Amino acid sequence: MSEKAPVKKPGKMNDLSDRKQGSKVLFDKPGNFLYPIPAVMVSCGTMEKPNIITIAWTGTICSDPPMVSISVRPERYSYDIIKTSGEFVINLTTDRLLKACDYCGVKSGRDVDKFSETGLTPSESHTVGCPSIEESPVSIECKVRNMIPLGSHDMFIAEVTGVTVDSAYIDESGKFQMNQTGLTVYSHGKYLSLGKTLGKFGFSVKKPAKKKKRK
Amino acid sequence: MSEKAPVKKPGKMNDLSDRKQGSKVLFDKPGNFLYPIPAVMVSCGTMEKPNIITIAWTGTICSDPPMVSISVRPERYSYDIIKTSGEFVINLTTDRLLKACDYCGVKSGRDVDKFSETGLTPSESHTVGCPSIEESPVSIECKVRNMIPLGSHDMFIAEVTGVTVDSAYIDESGKFQMNQTGLTVYSHGKYLSLGKTLGKFGFSVKKPAKKKKRK
Repeated sequence: MSEKAPVKKPGKMNDLSDRKQGSKVLFDKPGNFLYPIPAVMVSCGTMEKPNIITIAWTGTICSDPPMVSISVRPERYSYDIIKTSGEFVINLTTDRLLKACDYCGVKSGRDVDKFSETGLTPSESHTVGCPSIEESPVSIECKVRNMIPLGSHDMFIAEVTGVTVDSAYIDESGKFQMNQTGLTVYSHGKYLSLGKTLGKFGFSVKKPAKKKKRK
Repeated sequence: MSEKAPVKKPGKMNDLSDRKQGSKVLFDKPGNFLYPIPAVMVSCGTMEKPNIITIAWTGTICSDPPMVSISVRPERYSYDIIKTSGEFVINLTTDRLLKACDYCGVKSGRDVDKFSETGLTPSESHTVGCPSIEESPVSIECKVRNMIPLGSHDMFIAEVTGVTVDSAYIDESGKFQMNQTGLTVYSHGKYLSLGKTLGKFGFSVKKPAKKKKRK
């Protein structure tokens, strides 16, 4: 790996001319290194007996139909609830919800009422029987379509059946400004806020149209 | 949903006392709202004919064994390469790699040599035959264990077989400082840098041990 020739076109698309080539090393053991990722609060159960489990092993897996996955250890309290009901809601986490999010990841619903302890409010969902978290800016209602045992975790493959967002972040043009809600990420053991916007999808091939107009 | 009673324990774990309850609205159509997520450069193919495809539909799905998923549209150039070889490498994206990352998401390997165009260097992987991206601070080598057609995308379920990291970010104690590599995220059409560290996993239940010592 380290014997490779130096970059032939340094700086063409990246400012990496100062980077030492061949500095990559192999870890002794393979592990989970895919970061940063969302740490979401998954609500499940019923309006009468709701629960929350914080999950970072989640992702979007299909655009059409919109589908997501969450992976849950079978020994977790929420595992049987989700398996039996076939429903859950992914609630996104913001800086102001972070303490509750962390709490719901380390405590068990067997021992505490997480809604009560965190002060979060269960709200009725539109397409599933389990509650959403009222205070989260985005709640993604999901119905389980498949379950795959993988090892330490079982993966629930689910279809998104409804999405509610906080109308406070819908601008005058009707667009939902998701990145103004204070979203956080989880990366290698730490929770972080989002930093500055670096670009828009497709920016690398975008023609400088505005410049032309000004000429 | 909007007729719910106000929060009973406002501010117990969240500073949300100023938030208007019942402000959540349902979108007309369910969609992909799980953000922020990693936009990773997936390398595939061979050292002689390597390719890169940028993917945001990815996630960790199991801790033991370490497993990840990537979802790819069957019409994408990389789809057949990954399906045939059963191997790929997830390379994390940083601010300095962002333009290349975006480029590899909008261009097709049918039309351009993405390594050549971006100036990135294919480096030999340790556990798979397809190349890693030398300039990425973290490369996650993966072997496909299962493939599930879902709709617009097929999901490749894979086991992590090797991880290489840039030794420049390993500190004196031997710890890899992943969050100092300049990692970026993708959120609702935008790429963003990471902001400030807000807490460590478990911070919500951590006893203030240091304070006691100082007394």
